[in-house]
Parts: sequence; C-alpha cells; structure tokens
Amino acid sequence: MDSAFVPTTSFVRSQRSSAISGNRSGFLAPAVGRVARPVHSNVVKMVAPAADGKLAQTGDELADKCINSIRFLGIDAVEKAKSGHPGMVMGLAPTAYVLYDKIMKFNPKNPKFFNRDRFVLSAGHGSMLQYALMHLYGYNSVSLDDIKQFRQLGSVTPGHPENFETEGIEVTTGPLGQGICNAVGLAAAEAHLAATYNKPDAKIVDHYTFAIMGDGCNMEGISGEACSLAGHWGLGKLIAIYDDNHISIDGSTDIAFTEDVGKRFEAYGWEVINVVNGNTDLGAIEAAIEQAKKTTDKPTMIKVTTIIGYGSPNKADSYAVHGAALGADEVTATRESLDWDYPEFVVPDEAQEQFAKKTPEGAAIEEEWNASFEAYKEKYPELGAQFESVVLKNELGSEWEPALKKMGEETPKAATRQLSNIALNTIAPVVPSLIGGSADLASSNLTIMKGYGDFQKATPENRNLRFGVREHAMGAICNGIGLHGSGFIPYCATFFIFTDYMRAAMRMSALSQCGVIYVMTHDSVFLGEDGPTHQPIEHLASFRAMPNMNMYRPCDPTEVAAAYAVGVESRTTPTTIALTRQATAKYPEASFEGAKKGGYVLTDNTPEGETPDMILMGTGSELPLCYDAAEAVRESGKNVRVVSLPCWEKFLEQDAEYQESVLPAAVPMSKRLAVEAGSPFGWGTFAGNTITIDRFGISAPGNDIANYFGFTVENVTETAMKL
Amino acid sequence: MDSAFVPTTSFVRSQRSSAISGNRSGFLAPAVGRVARPVHSNVVKMVAPAADGKLAQTGDELADKCINSIRFLGIDAVEKAKSGHPGMVMGLAPTAYVLYDKIMKFNPKNPKFFNRDRFVLSAGHGSMLQYALMHLYGYNSVSLDDIKQFRQLGSVTPGHPENFETEGIEVTTGPLGQGICNAVGLAAAEAHLAATYNKPDAKIVDHYTFAIMGDGCNMEGISGEACSLAGHWGLGKLIAIYDDNHISIDGSTDIAFTEDVGKRFEAYGWEVINVVNGNTDLGAIEAAIEQAKKTTDKPTMIKVTTIIGYGSPNKADSYAVHGAALGADEVTATRESLDWDYPEFVVPDEAQEQFAKKTPEGAAIEEEWNASFEAYKEKYPELGAQFESVVLKNELGSEWEPALKKMGEETPKAATRQLSNIALNTIAPVVPSLIGGSADLASSNLTIMKGYGDFQKATPENRNLRFGVREHAMGAICNGIGLHGSGFIPYCATFFIFTDYMRAAMRMSALSQCGVIYVMTHDSVFLGEDGPTHQPIEHLASFRAMPNMNMYRPCDPTEVAAAYAVGVESRTTPTTIALTRQATAKYPEASFEGAKKGGYVLTDNTPEGETPDMILMGTGSELPLCYDAAEAVRESGKNVRVVSLPCWEKFLEQDAEYQESVLPAAVPMSKRLAVEAGSPFGWGTFAGNTITIDRFGISAPGNDIANYFGFTVENVTETAMKL
Repeated sequence: MDSAFVPTTSFVRSQRSSAISGNRSGFLAPAVGRVARPVHSNVVKMVAPAADGKLAQTGDELADKCINSIRFLGIDAVEKAKSGHPGMVMGLAPTAYVLYDKIMKFNPKNPKFFNRDRFVLSAGHGSMLQYALMHLYGYNSVSLDDIKQFRQLGSVTPGHPENFETEGIEVTTGPLGQGICNAVGLAAAEAHLAATYNKPDAKIVDHYTFAIMGDGCNMEGISGEACSLAGHWGLGKLIAIYDDNHISIDGSTDIAFTEDVGKRFEAYGWEVINVVNGNTDLGAIEAAIEQAKKTTDKPTMIKVTTIIGYGSPNKADSYAVHGAALGADEVTATRESLDWDYPEFVVPDEAQEQFAKKTPEGAAIEEEWNASFEAYKEKYPELGAQFESVVLKNELGSEWEPALKKMGEETPKAATRQLSNIALNTIAPVVPSLIGGSADLASSNLTIMKGYGDFQKATPENRNLRFGVREHAMGAICNGIGLHGSGFIPYCATFFIFTDYMRAAMRMSALSQCGVIYVMTHDSVFLGEDGPTHQPIEHLASFRAMPNMNMYRPCDPTEVAAAYAVGVESRTTPTTIALTRQATAKYPEASFEGAKKGGYVLTDNTPEGETPDMILMGTGSELPLCYDAAEAVRESGKNVRVVSLPCWEKFLEQDAEYQESVLPAAVPMSKRLAVEAGSPFGWGTFAGNTITIDRFGISAPGNDIANYFGFTVENVTETAMKL
Repeated sequence: MDSAFVPTTSFVRSQRSSAISGNRSGFLAPAVGRVARPVHSNVVKMVAPAADGKLAQTGDELADKCINSIRFLGIDAVEKAKSGHPGMVMGLAPTAYVLYDKIMKFNPKNPKFFNRDRFVLSAGHGSMLQYALMHLYGYNSVSLDDIKQFRQLGSVTPGHPENFETEGIEVTTGPLGQGICNAVGLAAAEAHLAATYNKPDAKIVDHYTFAIMGDGCNMEGISGEACSLAGHWGLGKLIAIYDDNHISIDGSTDIAFTEDVGKRFEAYGWEVINVVNGNTDLGAIEAAIEQAKKTTDKPTMIKVTTIIGYGSPNKADSYAVHGAALGADEVTATRESLDWDYPEFVVPDEAQEQFAKKTPEGAAIEEEWNASFEAYKEKYPELGAQFESVVLKNELGSEWEPALKKMGEETPKAATRQLSNIALNTIAPVVPSLIGGSADLASSNLTIMKGYGDFQKATPENRNLRFGVREHAMGAICNGIGLHGSGFIPYCATFFIFTDYMRAAMRMSALSQCGVIYVMTHDSVFLGEDGPTHQPIEHLASFRAMPNMNMYRPCDPTEVAAAYAVGVESRTTPTTIALTRQATAKYPEASFEGAKKGGYVLTDNTPEGETPDMILMGTGSELPLCYDAAEAVRESGKNVRVVSLPCWEKFLEQDAEYQESVLPAAVPMSKRLAVEAGSPFGWGTFAGNTITIDRFGISAPGNDIANYFGFTVENVTETAMKL
C-alpha cells in the first residue's frame, strides 16, 4: 500500500486515531483525504455517476467482478425473496471481499477447522452478505439453490445468520449488538487457549476474530459494555469493522446518533483506524486490517465509511435501501450503474476462478496446521492429548458427574449459593473447559473457582472472568466463548433479578443452542432488605416460558449437584440455576437422579397402592415448608405426598408414565398445593392451589418477609389442612 | 472560588476536559493538582490520618459538622439495620452537602413544588445518603424515626429509594444505570416544557436535573445509551456527578473497568469536569457545579474522585465498606478518626441550624414561582390554563376516550400496528402531554404523531422522540419523563421481541407506578422472514407474569382503541400493547368496553340459559381463527362461544360474576381451546387445550409459518371438533 497518511485537524484530538486511504483505485482519494469523518453530504457526492451513467468502482477489473458478484447475489436473493436487507451487502461488499480474499484464514471445505479465523456479522440483517461470501468461497453448506431459497421455509439461508441452521455460521446474530459481544467472547476464548496451549516453538492456537458492526450495533448499550471489557482485556486479535454508513431504519443517523464513535472506542482502550472511502478504496481497507493485525496489545476498530446501497442510483444512501428489496426497476438501474451485464444469480467465470482459489489455499492451511499439531503432540504429549480431547473433540471425561453426586451427598446444608460455589469448585479441577465469573458480584454470587486465577490482559490462561457490572455483555460474551467450538463450558452470574438486564443474551443462548450455565443467586424476596428492586417475582415463570432453557431451582446439596450435572451435560441447552441467599435444608430423601429428571417424590406416607390425599409441591427454599407442613398434616391421619419440582422443563421431558408416577392424575388439582416465593403464573399446570406472590416484594429482613407473605410452616400446614 | 486551573499533560488529549481544585480546605491541593485522573495508590495515601489519629476534613468547621451529620446518619442507620451501603454516604457526603446546601432549589415542605431541581440517586444502594439529606433538610416524609427504621418492614426508608414509598424521592433506583437514564428523561421533560411554555419575559419552567452515578452505573450499557442521546439532545440542564471511587463490590475497578470514562462522555458530546479531591475540596465541588450550570448547550459530567468509606480507618477505600455495616468497633474508630463526639443519630445544633435554613429558603422560592406563574397566567391566559390543567394538575380532559371509541368504530381493518398509529394520532391532538417514539423503528412501529415534529436539540418543543437503537435507555427515559410529575403520557416502541433488551426498564415502570405505554409491534412468528431472532414466543407469558403490567394484545380497531384507552387512563400501571405486522380483521361484535375489561364474549350461538358445548378463545391475530372456526363447528350443531381475552390482567381484575359470565365454570377445561401464536405457558388458567407454539420460530413468509404451526381455520376447526 502506498497511500498517503493524511493528518487532519480532527487528529489533534487523538494520537491514536489514524485515517488511511489507498490509491489502488485512485478514485476520490484527495477529496476524502481531507476529512477524517466525512460530512455526510460529501459522501453523497461520491456516488454521483459519471456522464455515461456508470458509477466509479475500484479500478481493478477482477476485484470489481468479485465485488459485484457478492453485491448482485445479495440484490438478486433479496429481490427473489421480496424481503431482506440489500443495502449493507451493496455497501460493504468491497470490505468483505478484501477480508475474505486477502485476509481471512479458513477452509471452506471444513468450516470447523479449529484454527480458522472467526467471522461474526454483528449487523446480522445483512445476512445475504455472509451467505454470498460462503457460497462464492466454496462452503458446501450454502449452494446457489440455497441462496435462491433465501428466507424461505426450511432453507439454510434464514433471514438472519443462524449457527444451528447453516454450517460455517459461527454465532446467531440479528438482535443488534449481540454479535460484537460474541466476537469478544470468541477472541477471549482464543486468548485463553493460546495462553494455555501455545509454546514458544508451537503456536497451535493462533487466529483472529473479525466482526462487522453497523450503526445499530454501536448504539446498543450491550456493545459498549463488551467493547469496554475487550479494551480492558487487551484482546489484540479482535478486529471490529464498523460499517459507518450513516443510515439506519429511521433514516440518517443524524436524528439520534451524533456521538464520536471512534473517540469512544479510544476511551475503551481500542486502536481506532478510519477508512474514509470504503466504497472503492480496497488498498486502504487492506492496509487498515493489516495495521490492525500488527496491533497486538489492544483490539482494533476500523471505521469504514461506506454508502449504503452503493450502486443503486435512486436508493443509495437512504433508508429505502436498508431493509427492503430494491424492486425490479431499481435492480435494472443498479446493474446499469455498476456496468453489470450478467443475469440474476450468475457469477462471471473470472470471479468464480478467483473465489475458487480459497479452496486449495484453505486445505493447505489446515494441512499445515494438522502437521504442526502432530509435532506438538509429540513434543508435548500431555497438553497435546488434553487439547485433542477437550478442545478438538469437546470431551468432558467421566469424573465430573460422580464428583458432583458425591459432593451432593457429603455436603451439609447451607445457602444454595454456597452449595453452588462448592459444586463449581468440584467440577473445576476435572473440567478444564469450565470458565466463567460474575458481573461484579463474585463475593455475593460465590462464583470464584479457587486457585484458577483471574483472566486478565496479562494472565489470559486463567479461568475466572471479571465482567464488571455488565450483565448483558456477560451473557453474550459467554455465548461467544461457548460457540468457539472448543468444548468450553461458560458460566456467568449475577442476582436473579438482573436477568432482566441480560435476557436477550440468555435467549440467544437458548436459540443458538449454546449450553451456558447461568448462576443466579438471591433468587426470591427472601434476599430481604434490598427490597423490590432486587427481589425476583416473575422471573422463574419468565424463563419457564422460554424455549430450550432449563430453569432449575434446587433446594439442597443433592439438588444443587443435580442442577450442575444437567448444566454440564446440556451442551445445546442453557441452564439457569436460581439459588438462595439464605440457608436452606438438607434431605436424605433428596434424589440426584430425581432432580436431574426435574421432579420426583421427596416424601410420602401413602400406603403402597393407595392414592395420596394431597400433594404438596415446591422448589428451592420453599420445599422445606412443604416437607415440614406435610409432617404436620400427616399427624391428622392424612396421606401426604411431597414433590420436589426443581426443573419443570426436565420433568415435562420425561415420559407420561414417569410424570404420572410423581403426580398421579388421581389426585385432583384441588388437592394439590404449590408453594413458591414467586409468581403463581404457570403453576396451574401442576396444582390448583398455590402459596405464591402476585405483587412486588418489600424491603425488610428475610424472616419478616416470610411472615408477611405467609411463607411459614404454619401457613402452609393450615392451607394444606383446608384442601 | 479562587482555585487554580491546573492544566496537565493529560489535557492535551482534550480541550473540553478540565480539572478543578479549590483551596477552601487547602488540603492536598498541590498534590492532587498534578494528576487529572489520580492513580489509585495516590488516593489511598490521601486518607492517612495525621499523627493525632484525626483525618483531615474540609477546614470549615460548620461544613464539617454538616457533612459528618450526613455521614453518621448513614453510618448509624446501616449499623442499626445491620444491612446497607455505608461507603458511598461517607465518601460522597461532601458533594451531597454542597449540592443540597449551595446549589439545589427545592422546598422541603412541598416536595412536589413544580419548579424544583430534580435529584436522582442513580447509585441507589446509597439510599441512606438521600434519606439523610431529606431528613436533615426538613422533608416531613423522612423523620429520624424513619431513619432508625431503615430497611425494616413497613418503613418509608427501604433498601433502595422508591418513589412510591417516600414522598420526595423522584424515581426508584437501585438496578444500576436506570437512574441516570431517568435523569435524562427528567431533563428532556424540562426542556420540552420550557420550550413549550416559557416566554422571553417568563421562564416558568426552569430547573436542573442532578444525578449521582457510581462506577456501576457507568459500566452498565444502558447509561451509555442514554448519555449518548443526552449529548445528542444537548440537554444543558442535566448535570451528572460521577462518584469516581474506584471500588465496586468485587474490589478495585481495576479488575474490570479501566476505560477513560471522561473521554467517553466527551465522545457523547458532554462537557466533562474533573474534581480531583472530592473528599475535602468543597470549593472545587461548588465551582465545578457552577461551571456545569453555565454550560447550556450540552450536559455536564462532573467526575468527583472520592474515597469510598472516607473516615473509616480500616475499611475506607475497599469493597468492605461498600455493601455492609461497618461493625461497632469500626464505627467507633470512624467517630475518632473524624473527631465526632456525638452519640448515634444525634445531629449537632449548629448543623441543624444550617440545614434548617433551607426551609424558609425553599418556601420563598416556591412563593416567588407562584407569583411569577400568576403573572404568566394573566399575560398568557390560554397557555397558562393549559399549564395549570395539564402540567400542574395532570388532567387529561374528556375528549380522548370518545375520540378513541369513535376511531375504533369507524376505522376499517388493517394490521393492528397501523391501527395503533391511528389511535396515537387520534389522541395526540387532544392529549398534549402525549410524547414518545421508537428505537429506530418508527417506520415499522408506525409511531409518528403527524404534525408534531421531532424533539431535537433545536426543537425540544416537539413531541416525537427519536431514541436510536437504544431500547433499554428508551424505557428508562420514558420512566423519567413520566415521573417528572407533569402529566406526561410517555410511549415508546420497538419490535415486541426487543422487550428482552429493555425488560429491566419496563419492570421499573411497573414497580415505580409509571404509566408508560409500550407499543410493541411485530408481535408473533407471523412477522415472517426475519426469523426466530425476531419472533416473540414467550414474551406475552413473560409480561403476564409481571406484577402491575397490563399486557394487551388487541385483535381489531375496536380493541386497539380500548387498549389505548386503558393505556391512557392507567397512570400508575404501564401498558404493553402487542401489535401485528400483518393485517387482521374487524368485527361488529368487538366491544370497546369488553376489551377494556380484558375479556368478553365475542360471539356465541348458545341459546339463552344453556351452557356452551365449548369455548374457543384467543387474542390478537389468532382471534379471527377462533371466529371462523366457531362458525364451521356450529354447522355441526354445536353451541360454540368465542371469547376474546386481549388483557388477562384486566380480566382477572373484574369481579367473579363478570368472569363467570364470560368463562362459565360449567364449561370444563377440557372443552376449552385457546389459540395464540406464542408460548402455551400460563394458558392453563383458562383452557385445557391450546394451539400455541412451544419452540422457537422459523424464517419464512408469514403464510407458510401459519401453515407450518397449524394456525389455520382448518386446524382450529378440526381441533375444536375433537374436544
């Protein structure tokens, strides 16, 4: 690259910021060189076509063929679907081409190749950009037919990139800001693995993580949280490309988003590079990425200023091209403006040939890595074996479950958050892929793995993550770590109430089949004095309603162990474990297997073959009330069954026979009482009566709250007697 | 103030940043002047007591008496409760004293005085700071007994500030970051009212909004969203004080939070001022706030560096003082270190006298305002009458409900999001306090009030808010607007799925009794091609489980009008309205009153006095399936009732007789079928059978999705026939 570095007045504000422009195209370089952040109206002028109606392109014929192949696959697919977002594909095709063609290491024929660079389209609505790239660069998972089926029922090309639908998609994106946080997680995973396994003579873990963010991603608070943390962690191999196109759904970002994004990222401790002409200046794009790769002690944000919908004479640079098909006439006009004579879905041979080069290149990269890993295994047999088992094959070994079961049996009663800490520290030594931490509540959530140190910039080999008060990013970063494909079991923690801050990320765990363990302490009004702002009420119900989420609320050491066992073994379903602040009980009748099944009979005095007079049921810290109340009721001669239901989802997964054995239909709803310090919502499935809380909580000591809301053995007994 | 402005090397990076230190105390000014952001270890050195064991204070005896009165009320109350957060009260007492004593305009005997400065303790865990200030400065709502009842059952001094418990608390805080966003809303409300009502000769609206943020608030993404918007809006009368104490629950913020916060706020377009010694330099604190008030075109962030737990010889500057009582010994040691000879809960007379000055001062301020408002009313009778009615008395007038009802009757069928737009534009002209907008989806949510312009820096008199892609801040800003006390009806909008991004703010609406209207479009899988990342499933259930939230899902023009009617009249309960992307139906049988009651009989062919053979029920876009299926089933001779249940909460609020009249117990659960394109969770309350969706959605055109999931008249009919 022989571009001129053009310092401008804007640069005085920061020594770390730099603008890059190349002369590969020679197009407009002087004009744009003068502004670090181009005034929007200047950008508009750039798209004015020449007198012949043709729009300036890169000046490199082959590159233009490739870039327009990407663009028109996007345009044509959206047009066929009559739905989608063509603008970003059109505007960012040059950057994407440079990234895939010149920079990224991947093997299209093995999308899971361990040492591949990770690519995250955080602006997931531009999914056709990713599908076009994957198809053109030879991924078998996205055929031309798949692209023609964009956004159709049963296709592998859904509206937004979905890792569980399309091999080669790393993470599921669409909800804005999630992807960049996933990328932080992917980069953290790489940093951890590199620090754990690499040797001076053998860098077997060595890849970059690239993310593409739009204006929307940058407006979302979650991205700020994660990027602040990425700066703190000094994730040098994280490179975020910000598609600065100045347009979002409601029009110009001027109406709501006028902050200085680059300066904000500098404040986070990132390197910031500006590419002032992302439309045609391929040299500048390449040079910026190369410079970013050279920055090893901090992440880099490359602000690439582009025109959304570049090529569309009437819709470029407007919201009209953001989220709707161009329409037949405008597609034709765009073909003319970009001098593109090919019919829809046709890719010219020269471009095909260029794209095809990545296939042998990728195979060679993987082969080379395989050879180096073989050498590594010979030289470092123990680490090599661990890497192969844990990282490559995602094996968990056989020690963790017996260890958990034993822990459940041998541990005395305590607050379930304390039991959770013991469970974590039981697994930590035998599951090296367990990694996680809390959102600044480690001392309350009790989530430290003792002896495993803090993951920090200087110590990424450590396994305790310190997320700061950043719940939402925490969840999304864990998704990134989990979806690195290296066997990680990420866990994260905060007060149960603050799942409200991170619910979107938790849903993404569930949707993208990422088995994060959510350790949620202070799980009810009994946390006491902090009051209703901190007391969960509707939260159990809200997660029970969420698909593919195991919501556990264990009551004692055995059940805590079982909840963790399900968390560890459920690699495609996240597990949320609600845990008490206060002490609970320990029952010899508690069942590890029963709790893993989500529900079981804890105690019953009903003679064999008879039907219980009533069933008391509950979860977590209210199960002891049922246990004790049942004993009191039995004194009156009644047959009373107590059922523990720590996880409804697991229970409802069991066959009908098992469910009937626990909750026999012969005991009518009117003879069943559920006790839980949370919303009654949903309990109608299991019980006709509840002692629950259908209002917000209150600030007071826990015992006072128990009396106030009737969570006493006396009240449960009395209510049960009335059944 | 006669402090020296001390430029330092750090200042080169920014012309907007400035450090202020006063010499009122003379203590340490030269030492701290040398660093714009003090290295933490330097700060620690500052607290070393002198040889006599006494800690340096401000040097102003009266001020010290007042400051320590605040401190020790906090210390003693936390100690008595054995629960709470003393550290912040101790560290920030000097700043709080300056703010309340020298700066803020309020009338303690009328906490609702319209033109008061608004104070928000965004770091709500420091609630004792606010209670101490309110008590000492003469608010009747917080007596000394109340302070002694801190965090006890039934007290007005709960663990975190709650506007609904304690008169004079503006907003409910505790969940970090919410408060600063509320403050942005309060300041936006002030800006809007000032632009609407002020005249060159009569500034009847003229107050500041002060917020105190901690490190935690600054780590949360929500605060970044709101502060970016506040910068964009140029809210010059918003002044945020950042208690930069470098400690959060997990210890030093160094473990997770090393970004340059000041620089980030500059990037947002804020003025940033550093007070390098917030422990004793009162002059610097006062000068900083005065300077902030002079900055009228942008909000100001004052970073006050303090030592958490200032005064505690053994626990200051550590997490130990953040969230737990000091313990008796340390309280004694703190009394010694601060030379404080008074028993617990005793305030010295000199301090009492100083605090008491605010009472006549406040009364005079209110009197002066009352006089100026009288003059205003005479000079501008129309505006004055509107101000009195809408802003002061929060009156809604009588036109809006008939207008809505008429709109429901006269509007043809359409997507309910379109009907929502018509409803908004029906109310807008007759309810001048309606203000709101969308998180960058105005063109999809259809939330623009036509003819009412955009609220922007230059046009704050306008009523359409442009939030950008910042859902979480949007909700919290609306809470601030709503709780300004000026009759505002704030509404805000995004896709229903993205309630996951803003759930914490929506819960705060419900908890703090703020009647925000949440306009949530694209309310089911039928939004189609965007796929499962955008398709709500569990969301209806999750809000139905939330206390004090009305969750509406209307089916046609009449029901949309009714949902808005409930939204408008429910000033202490927020209303979430789920609306379709796609067209629905219109029914002559639809009932405005019935929909306001949350549920009613839409159609029924059962002869008078007989019991229906079955009940089909549903909400929103699935009600038409019930309607049509019922007609088909009736052809077989059955008596079929169709029930519309647009709002479960309102329905369950009705008396038993009404509920029985709609859903008679004589029709068993097994003969009831609910149809809703969402989770089955919770439907067990009303029906034994459902056609619902218990998995994530799928990317495809809406009609294909309807067939795929069985949301067809054929399937509903067939299922109903089998009952």
